[in-house]
Parts: sequence; structure tokens; C-alpha cells
Amino acid sequence: MPEHTAASRLRLSGLCFLLQILNILLFAVFVRYGSESSPDRCSPQLNCSRRNQDLGFQHPRFQDVHIQVLLSFGLLVAFFGRYGPGSAAISILIIAFDIQWAVLIQGFFNFFLNGKIYVGAQSMVSADFCTAAVLISTGAVLGRVNPVQMLLLALLEVTVCTLNEYILLSLMGVSDSGRSLTVHTFGAYFGLMVSRILYQPHKDKRKREERQDMGHQPDLLAVAGTIYLWIFWPSFTSATTVHDNAENWAMLNTYFSLVATTMATFILSPVLYGESTPRMVQIQNATLAGMAVMGMAGEMLVTPFGALIAGFLAGLISLLGFRFFTPILHSRLKIQDACGVHNIHGLPGILGSLLGTLLTLLATADTYGDRLELVFPLVAQGSRTVTDQVFIQLGALPLTLLLATLGGCVTGEI
Amino acid sequence: MPEHTAASRLRLSGLCFLLQILNILLFAVFVRYGSESSPDRCSPQLNCSRRNQDLGFQHPRFQDVHIQVLLSFGLLVAFFGRYGPGSAAISILIIAFDIQWAVLIQGFFNFFLNGKIYVGAQSMVSADFCTAAVLISTGAVLGRVNPVQMLLLALLEVTVCTLNEYILLSLMGVSDSGRSLTVHTFGAYFGLMVSRILYQPHKDKRKREERQDMGHQPDLLAVAGTIYLWIFWPSFTSATTVHDNAENWAMLNTYFSLVATTMATFILSPVLYGESTPRMVQIQNATLAGMAVMGMAGEMLVTPFGALIAGFLAGLISLLGFRFFTPILHSRLKIQDACGVHNIHGLPGILGSLLGTLLTLLATADTYGDRLELVFPLVAQGSRTVTDQVFIQLGALPLTLLLATLGGCVTGEI
Amino acid sequence: MPEHTAASRLRLSGLCFLLQILNILLFAVFVRYGSESSPDRCSPQLNCSRRNQDLGFQHPRFQDVHIQVLLSFGLLVAFFGRYGPGSAAISILIIAFDIQWAVLIQGFFNFFLNGKIYVGAQSMVSADFCTAAVLISTGAVLGRVNPVQMLLLALLEVTVCTLNEYILLSLMGVSDSGRSLTVHTFGAYFGLMVSRILYQPHKDKRKREERQDMGHQPDLLAVAGTIYLWIFWPSFTSATTVHDNAENWAMLNTYFSLVATTMATFILSPVLYGESTPRMVQIQNATLAGMAVMGMAGEMLVTPFGALIAGFLAGLISLLGFRFFTPILHSRLKIQDACGVHNIHGLPGILGSLLGTLLTLLATADTYGDRLELVFPLVAQGSRTVTDQVFIQLGALPLTLLLATLGGCVTGEI
Repeated sequence: MPEHTAASRLRLSGLCFLLQILNILLFAVFVRYGSESSPDRCSPQLNCSRRNQDLGFQHPRFQDVHIQVLLSFGLLVAFFGRYGPGSAAISILIIAFDIQWAVLIQGFFNFFLNGKIYVGAQSMVSADFCTAAVLISTGAVLGRVNPVQMLLLALLEVTVCTLNEYILLSLMGVSDSGRSLTVHTFGAYFGLMVSRILYQPHKDKRKREERQDMGHQPDLLAVAGTIYLWIFWPSFTSATTVHDNAENWAMLNTYFSLVATTMATFILSPVLYGESTPRMVQIQNATLAGMAVMGMAGEMLVTPFGALIAGFLAGLISLLGFRFFTPILHSRLKIQDACGVHNIHGLPGILGSLLGTLLTLLATADTYGDRLELVFPLVAQGSRTVTDQVFIQLGALPLTLLLATLGGCVTGEI
Repeated sequence: MPEHTAASRLRLSGLCFLLQILNILLFAVFVRYGSESSPDRCSPQLNCSRRNQDLGFQHPRFQDVHIQVLLSFGLLVAFFGRYGPGSAAISILIIAFDIQWAVLIQGFFNFFLNGKIYVGAQSMVSADFCTAAVLISTGAVLGRVNPVQMLLLALLEVTVCTLNEYILLSLMGVSDSGRSLTVHTFGAYFGLMVSRILYQPHKDKRKREERQDMGHQPDLLAVAGTIYLWIFWPSFTSATTVHDNAENWAMLNTYFSLVATTMATFILSPVLYGESTPRMVQIQNATLAGMAVMGMAGEMLVTPFGALIAGFLAGLISLLGFRFFTPILHSRLKIQDACGVHNIHGLPGILGSLLGTLLTLLATADTYGDRLELVFPLVAQGSRTVTDQVFIQLGALPLTLLLATLGGCVTGEI
Repeated sequence: MPEHTAASRLRLSGLCFLLQILNILLFAVFVRYGSESSPDRCSPQLNCSRRNQDLGFQHPRFQDVHIQVLLSFGLLVAFFGRYGPGSAAISILIIAFDIQWAVLIQGFFNFFLNGKIYVGAQSMVSADFCTAAVLISTGAVLGRVNPVQMLLLALLEVTVCTLNEYILLSLMGVSDSGRSLTVHTFGAYFGLMVSRILYQPHKDKRKREERQDMGHQPDLLAVAGTIYLWIFWPSFTSATTVHDNAENWAMLNTYFSLVATTMATFILSPVLYGESTPRMVQIQNATLAGMAVMGMAGEMLVTPFGALIAGFLAGLISLLGFRFFTPILHSRLKIQDACGVHNIHGLPGILGSLLGTLLTLLATADTYGDRLELVFPLVAQGSRTVTDQVFIQLGALPLTLLLATLGGCVTGEI
């Protein structure tokens, strides 16, 4: 980004200043620390009395989620040796701003009580999830928007993303603990729509040439990123699941999914690209896809071989998407997808939500046992039938797609 | 590995496909999630009712072990700037395959009940340990076997390694919580035997030249690796120890051992190599050696100064091994040791198991107190005398060496 | 450090040998494992019966602190692409020696009972804090002292630092859980004084030229370092705070502070340096400053917007310090500050301790509730008034500065 003049430079600085002052003022008026130990401080819709107990006192897990947001999305998707260290700086700016903004916006929806927002570890985890969705969108438009536009995108997306999350999780009671829908799918399609609106045929080529000058480092970074994802993502997927057995399942399901995705990459990549071993970037993308597919279904009744099959399919879909789908997106629909977020987050996210819907069909007291109350509390209490839950899970997908597309259009226009 | 033709490329892809299909089928038939909370699902030999309580509900510790396996062994030993990013991809392939395979094989030995294998966090930790042994062996033959051979090696080694673990831990009741014997020693000697069988005098030189083209990166990686090991290995050593006090000891012993090994490197390296400060790779190797030596003895009655002395000796042995022993291995015994696993894992592992045997002599109720039941349950229950336990601990070493050597021979021949 | 002759090389090796033998002997005579579960083994001044319960059984948190010490200080401050991998090796040597030495020295002050030092996780955390202070000092003199001098500096500083900590925390009862004073401020001013005494006008230029040959790597390292700090430092700040609610506050306060510091960097950096986005090194420095400012005040009654404001100010001060204060330090006071520790640790540490003093004024039972007993136990028990506590907190700052300056002078002279 060497073409920035003094004016644009100071515009970013000034915008940051205004937004930060705004944040401080809003925080001063509205935000207070909630006492985590008293569960009556949070809105009844979120079931957060239960969630609070899980999250409020378990800092390691909170930390793991934070790790994910920063590293996996921030570093890997956005930076990742593609546009040099400058984009890493912008990613960190977006994270720093978004966490404050998401605490505010989500606080108004979920934690608002007597004119104050009571924050705690739970709010930070939610804000992190929201920031993750923004960073996925960022991956789609990277290199074609300047930092000021990026900040505005973040500002608007947080709002729409929180709205979507509120409708799905609080109003509709959808079970989406690993956020296949609200983070992966939403983020990917929001970013793709913005990318569509901002389509500029000429600018892309120059950028692509700039990518080539990093030598061995992308591979090094991809190795680091892959290992990081393997280590921490299973916790990410299980971060908001209920404690006892469900978490264990979410974690093991994610591991098995991930292992199968990696194998799928080794199987398909030589066939498609004609190299003996896949490049590390492909393995990293496969890892991300294998994780996205387990987002919703992770805490449900996936058997180990089910997780292996789902991961295997996600790996194949992601690779086939890169090979055949991205060029079509680009030439036909005029959507440029800088980091391939459609294949990494979009398609596996949809696959994951379909899988989750399928598994909801099996949600009876026989198969789930005690876990039923944890995964589908409304079904367990008898206030909703399994069929209703299935339709609601199924309906969440088009709703998310709709909101993401609309939001992306509006944001792109602005 | 540029010489691979289309045929060999697709051979790897096809082999992966077959193995993955086989894994999915075997998982579908045999593997189910066990409910971690009911301890009656696991075989009585493993004492896993006790272990389950420790491991089943403590994900941070499980995570730490997983971190270790992937990074310390996978990245550092196998990849580590020696043969370029290609070998990292192969390492990840081996990890992905081995975790599935080890869950199956170990499941048949340890978690088999009514025709099903019930898996949980405990199974994943065991599978990780097994994968670690395979990656150590891989370090010995790196650069001389192609990926297909590597996969076959992994397939066979997991089987022999599980057999060794089953005999030592379940049948003989050896106390080896940090796996000095079953991971470090076994992995090193298995790999060395395979290396001996595959000895090809000419091929080595060309490879060595290829190593030189990475510039500063090995040092950077070694810094990252050393820091990583310092942070996470104490948890690795203490991952399968019992919870209360014993873990604390294992952790502190490992820290003290590690500190002393590092000092030993700074003392001996200038004398041997004539540089003012040791290179980072040497510090990293010393760190690994200091950890391997604490594998068995970590949870036993090592006083802080005992840990300092043991670590100090391990550091000296490792460095002297690199200087004087590796050339002898190569010229006399025709064993090429690409990453020096004999000095890093083999010798310190043997030293550690001898130390563990020595400390078993002191295992009376007076010196151990409540810990006796945790470290040596059979001795505490009176069903075995201390002398018996000493002979069993001592006998585990030659048995491990024998199994590793035989297994390595057979694998190398195939 | 190519100019080292064989003599100096062996001098370092010999010194390490002597110190290590000394450590082993002292450990053999004095150090034993304490049983963590019996709180009566520790000195009553430290309130360690309470602390022990927190730290003794919570390994994840202990681990986080250890991570901090090694990476944030060791890698980032000392190594950080400035003087090549050689300085990383020296940092690790200092860490290895200091942990042993600090366990001994701190043991004599805090854990001495019946002629033995009883160590546990608590001792390791304290030793880590002490090592952190030494590494901060190291950052100020980096590149101007040889390894032998570095070791002597570490030897002396650990002693003075422990004395300072003992006076502040145990005798005066100052509340400084995140160690704004005893680690950040002490380490920075100690290092600056040593740097002042060792001032050599000519040597600096040559070193500065050597710095330039690392290409893209500093940026890569700074990205890794920043992400690392974001992830783990909130745990660092809250590592020694009390468990229940206070920790939560410390963690959230630190997050908010950090977010605001990052925004401040994006606001001020373009104005001062004329680049559109700040370099990653600046973002990393800002992150460190935002953490240092929350050291003392973290567990006190900082509201979320208070943390935002404090972090914002720390970010501005740190950047202004780099721009205007470091040149003055160099030209007027003849203090060379190789890594800018004055701006990163010194000034924010002072700001943090002033903030902490201010917040102590509000320490009444009304505002703190149950937390009062945890943060200020003496005030809660009625044996000390709030005003007294304020003066004691305030008095701790000049005392720390005095001890650091004196200690630095003496060390520099030797």
C-alpha cells in the first residue's frame, strides 16, 4: 500500500481517533463489569445462566477461543504471506476495534439490563466469535479495499452479524455451538457479496504479482498455521458447548474430522495438481475446512466414523472448489475471492449445517440420553418437538445466507 | 523429492485412499464413543478407572500432550529445515494416518469390550504417544525413504509399539509415565535398525548438500522449537502421571532437568566445537535430551538436586554422543542417523530408565508416603515387593530394546 | 560476536561450569520439594497459604506465566531480530541460570524453614517473575556486554530484585499482583543504570549496522510476538491474583487496555512517523506497554472504560517516548537504550503504579465488596486504613526506583 498519500494516511489515523473516543464514551456510559457468579444478570433467552457457569470460570477455554480468533483467522487468512506484513497490521487494527465494538453491540442485544451492559468472559468470547466472522469476510476482499474501507466494513458487519446471531441462537433456539452458520457461512458469504460489489477487473492482476516475492516464507507460515490449528481448534469448536460429555464429543469429533480432511488432501491433491505431495497451504486450507464442517454437528451424535466421513467429504469439496469453483465464481459471477474463503469456510460451513440438521433428526432421549437437555434444551423440556427443531435448524441456513448477502450488498454499496 | 514420476505420485495417493477407506470401515464396525464418566468401560489392566478420571475431564492437559506430539516431534525432529517443507507435509500425513491407526490398534489391546472399542480423551492421548514414537523413528531415516515406504513404516511401527506398551505397562506393571522407554528409547532404536537395513552409502552425500540452502531459517526454527519445548514439555512429561502431588513433582523435576541440560550445553559445546556460544540447534537437542531423561523418573522421588544432576549428565551424554558416537555408528555399524535421534532420544532414554530403576529401590512407604500408591500401586497394595518392581523396571529396558530392534529389522526388510 | 578468542570462549564455559556446580551443591544442601497441600510450610508474611491454594494446583496458569517469561521477554525483547540468533542463545543461558538462582535466593527470603527451602509451583512462578526483570534489563544493554558480563549482571540483579520484592510485597504489603513495579519498572531502570555506567560512545554505531541484515524476518517475528502477547499476557497479569472474581477483572481489564493501546498506536504513529500503518514492531511495543500499565491496577476497581483510557494513555506515552525521550536519554544523559525498554516497560510501569495508587483511594468495602479482602487483606482486616495503604502504594514507587538505580550502579561498576 505504498500509494497512500499524507491525506489518506491521516484519514485513517483520524477515523481511528474518532472511533476510539466514541468507544470510550459508550463504554463509560453503558459498560460495567458483571459479577459472573450471579447468573441473574443475563438475559433469559441465551440460557446464559448455564453458559455463564461454563465460561465464566474456565479461563483456559476462553483463552483458547481468543487464540483461535487472533491466529487462525487473523494471521492465516488475512496475512499469510500474501500481501506482506502490512495486512497483518490492518488485521490487528480490525481485531482491536471489533472487540470493543462487538462488546457494545452484542451487549445491547444480550446483556442489557437497567440501562447498563454487564460484561464478563462470556461477552469477550462472543465478541471474539464476531471478530472471526469479520476476518473471514476480510479474507475475501483483501488487497482491494483500503484500511479506511476495511474499518467501515468491520463496523457494519459486526452489527449484521450480531443481529443474525441474535435471531438464530436466542430467538429461534438453533443449536450451533461451533458456529458453522453464524461465523463460517455468514462470514464467507458476506465477504463474497462485498467482493462482488467492489469488483474491479484490472486491479487484481497487479496484486497477484506482488504476492510472489516472499520465497520460502509462505510454506513456513503454513506449517506453523497448520500445527496451530490442529492444536487449538478442537477447543475452539468445543468452546461454547456444554461441559460434561458433549464437550468431549465435540473435541473428538473435530479431531477425527481433521485427520480425515488431511488424508483427503493427500489423496485428491496429486490427482488434481500433479505434484507428489500437496503444498502446505493446501493442507492448511483442508484443516480449516475440516474444522468448519464440525461446527454445528460437533456436539451432536456423530459417531467416530461419521466424523471421519464428514471430514473426508469436506476435504474433497474444499479442494474441488478451489480447482473448479473459484474460476467460475471469478469469470461468471465476477466475484474475486482473494483467499478462497468460499471453499474454506463457505462450502464446508453449509455442509456442516446440513449434517447438523440431519443429526437433529436423531435427537431422541434414547440416542442422546442426558445430553439431550444440554444440546437441545427446548426439545428435552418438551416445549418443542424434534421435527420442529429440524425445520428450525434447516431454516437457519437460508436465513443466514440471506442476511449475509443483504448485509454484504449494503456494506459494499456504502 | 523432484524425481517422483506420475506413477509414484499416484501410488502415494492411491495408498492413502485405500488406507483411509480401510480406517473408515474399521471405525464404522468397531469404534464408538465411550462415556467417560462410567469407569467400567475400560479394561482393568490399565488402571484406567483412575487414569480416566485424570484425563477424561482435563482437556488442557490432553491438549498439551497433543501439542507436544505435533510440534516437538513432528516439526522439530522431522521437518526442521533439513529437507524443506516437503518433509513437513509427509510428517503431517503420517500423523493424520497414525492417529487413526493407533486408536484402532491400541483400542484392540486396551479398550476392547463386547466387540466394540470405546474411545475417549484417554485413547487420543495414547494414540499421540504412539505417533510420537513413529516420528522419532522417522527422524532416523529421513531423506532416505520415500513417502510410501514411510507410511508402511508407520503402519508396522504402530503395531509393534502398541505391543511393547501393552507388555510393559499393562502386563508387567512398569511405571513409565513420561514414556522414557516406550516412546523415546523404542522410537530411537526402531528407527536406527530400519536405517541400518536400508543403508545405502552413496545416497547420503547428495542429500547432505541439499540441506545447506535454508540460510537463517534453521536457527529461527530452533529458537521457536526450544521455547516451545521449554513451555510445554513439563506438561508432556506429567500428562499421564497421577493428579495430586505426583504431577507437581514430575513438572518441577522436568524443569530442573531442562535447566541443567541447557547449562551443560553451554559448558561442553565450546570445548568440543570451538564456538563461543552453542548453536540453537544444539540447545534444542539438549532440551529434548533433558526431557527424555526425566520420562520415567519424573514422578518418582527425584530431589531437585537429583534432577539437576540427571539433566546435567543427559546434556553431556547427548553432546558427546553427537561428537564421538554418531561417526562411529556411521562408519562401523553402517547406521546413518539423519537427525541424531540416538543421541537425543536413545541414550537419554536409557539413562532415564536406569535412573528410574535406581529410584524404584527407594520406593518404601516412608519415603513416598501417599504417593506410593499412585506411582507403584502394586507395591502399595502389597501384591509385589520393591525388589520385584526393581527387577521388572530393569527388565523393561532390554525387552524394549529387543522389540525395537526386531521390529526395526522386520520393517526394514519389508 | 565473532571477535571472541579461545580464552574468552572457555571463560564463559568455565564460568557456567562453576555456577552450575555451585547451584547443584546449594540445591543438594538446601532445596527440598514442599508438599503443596500443606499450607504451613511457607512463611506467614507472604499470605502464601492463600496463594498456594491458587497456584499449587492450577498448572495451566503456572504454565502461562512460564510462557510469558520465555517468549515475551526472552524472545521478543532480547532476540527479536536485532543481533541475530546468538543473542537468543545468551537469553536462554540467562533464563536457565536465573531460574535456578532465583529459586535459591527467593527461597532464602520467602520459603526458608528449618534450614531447608521447600519449593513448589509457587517458587517457580516467583523465579520466573524475577527472570523477567533480568531479561528486561538485558534489553537495555544488549549488544554492549559480553556473555560473561551478562551472567554476572543476572547474578546480581536477581539478588537485588528479590530484595525489592521482599520489601514491597512481604514487609510493606503493597498490592502489585501484575508486577508493574517489581518487574517492569525495576527491570527497566536497573538496565538503564547499567547502560549508563557502561556508556561507550563508539561501540554503538557498528552494532547498529549489523542490525540491518535480517530483511523481512523482524516483521514476521513481530507479528508472531504480538499475537503471542495478546493471547497469553492477560493470563500473565492475572497469574498471581486471587481466584474468584478478581482474576476475571484483571483479565478483562488487561484485554481492554491492550485493545486501546493498539488503537492509540494506529492513531499516533502515522502522525509521528509519516507511514500509513504502523510497523509491526511498534504494535508489539504498544502491546507490551498496554500490559505493563495494567500490572498493579489490573485486579483493582478499574471499570472497562477506565482500562480503555489507561491503555490509550500508555500507548501514547510509549510512542512519544520513543520519538522524543530516547534521543534525549542518549544525548543528554548518555544512556543507550538498545531495545527501548524505558518506553516499553519503564514509563508504562510508573503510569500503572500511579494509577494503582489512585485506585487504592477508592478501596472501601462498598466499592470492592468481597474483593476487598482479596486485594487488600490488611485493609479488610482493619489493621491498616485506606490512607495508609495509599501512602504505602505511593512510597513503593520511589523505593523501587532507588533500589533499581543503586543496584544498577553497583552492577555496572563491577
